Amino acid sequence: MDFPSKLIENAVGELSKLPGIGKKTALRLALHLLKAETDTTATLAEALAKMRFDIRYCDTCHNISDTAECSICANKLRDHSIICVVSDIRDVIAIENTGQYKGGYHVLGGVISPIEGIGPSDLQIDSLVERISAPDSEIKEVILAISPTMEGDTTAFYLSRKLRDFAEVHISSIARGIPMGGELEYADEITLGRSIVERQRQAK
Amino acid sequence: MDFPSKLIENAVGELSKLPGIGKKTALRLALHLLKAETDTTATLAEALAKMRFDIRYCDTCHNISDTAECSICANKLRDHSIICVVSDIRDVIAIENTGQYKGGYHVLGGVISPIEGIGPSDLQIDSLVERISAPDSEIKEVILAISPTMEGDTTAFYLSRKLRDFAEVHISSIARGIPMGGELEYADEITLGRSIVERQRQAK
Repeated sequence: MDFPSKLIENAVGELSKLPGIGKKTALRLALHLLKAETDTTATLAEALAKMRFDIRYCDTCHNISDTAECSICANKLRDHSIICVVSDIRDVIAIENTGQYKGGYHVLGGVISPIEGIGPSDLQIDSLVERISAPDSEIKEVILAISPTMEGDTTAFYLSRKLRDFAEVHISSIARGIPMGGELEYADEITLGRSIVERQRQAK
Repeated sequence: MDFPSKLIENAVGELSKLPGIGKKTALRLALHLLKAETDTTATLAEALAKMRFDIRYCDTCHNISDTAECSICANKLRDHSIICVVSDIRDVIAIENTGQYKGGYHVLGGVISPIEGIGPSDLQIDSLVERISAPDSEIKEVILAISPTMEGDTTAFYLSRKLRDFAEVHISSIARGIPMGGELEYADEITLGRSIVERQRQAK
């Protein structure tokens, strides 16, 4: 694609490095910014730079935070005897949005993936073990809330092996089963099979 | 959606103001930037700001440009007796990419749209008339290359009325017909009908 201006070519080039944004979409975004007020672009550029340079990660759970301790870890009303282990910050946001969980988190920062060259040492696994083994630790349960993909299952397996020495800490994983609104006939065999084996008894 | 950080909330808010980008996509983009080197964000923010503040529009054809005269208008090898009138800079890029056109352009900056409150005076129509009526004008042909939508056709009709006083200037419009690879049975009736009425005689 030939551009009539080096400035727009640069902007399109940078925008199209973002995931899911190709050259055509990048050009549409650039032309949108050109048509809008200059303030729009200034605010966007500033918000991005500020986010990237000023962001911090919580020293305890590695969630993103504006301060050394994130708002979840600092919240005295939450139950810090439970830790929910997730791979990504997006998972924290998703679980928080359900409003069903009031414990703490631990963000691994990814999953074990030999193909992408991500090993256990690249993730926040040691710091999770440290949190649990700390003398003043009050942790009673660790929930493994990792997406059930090949890499996710490997990570969960690795973690449960790592954590089984802590006899006093319960390890659980999020329930697998048929999602709300899901049709039985379209569910895959493994999910349907497990949802029958691990059926939930109803209260009478 | 609740965010654990004001910084990320601001960035997601600004990103999701872009066309075709919702909150979820914006969050994915923001987290991608957080994972990448700080340079990536700095370069992106700078490229956007530089584009918005330093961009110029060609004084003659209103194409985007880094200088007062765009590279197309300044090119002495092009045929400046033909002007191709388009609504948008994207159309210039699309036509340039075909490599089939070696004349000049005139970018209107939109199409007449009463619903969006865009009238003829909001577009670069007067400057087109000025270009043609200038005493030293060498323009012999004006090609109306405007998308055949309701608004586009209105704009083309308005333009051809405006330009019909210039007896020495030919007005043409881009050919309508069945696109390459298009199937006759799926073509709409108006296109198919016109492609038969305005059939092109083959050279023997």
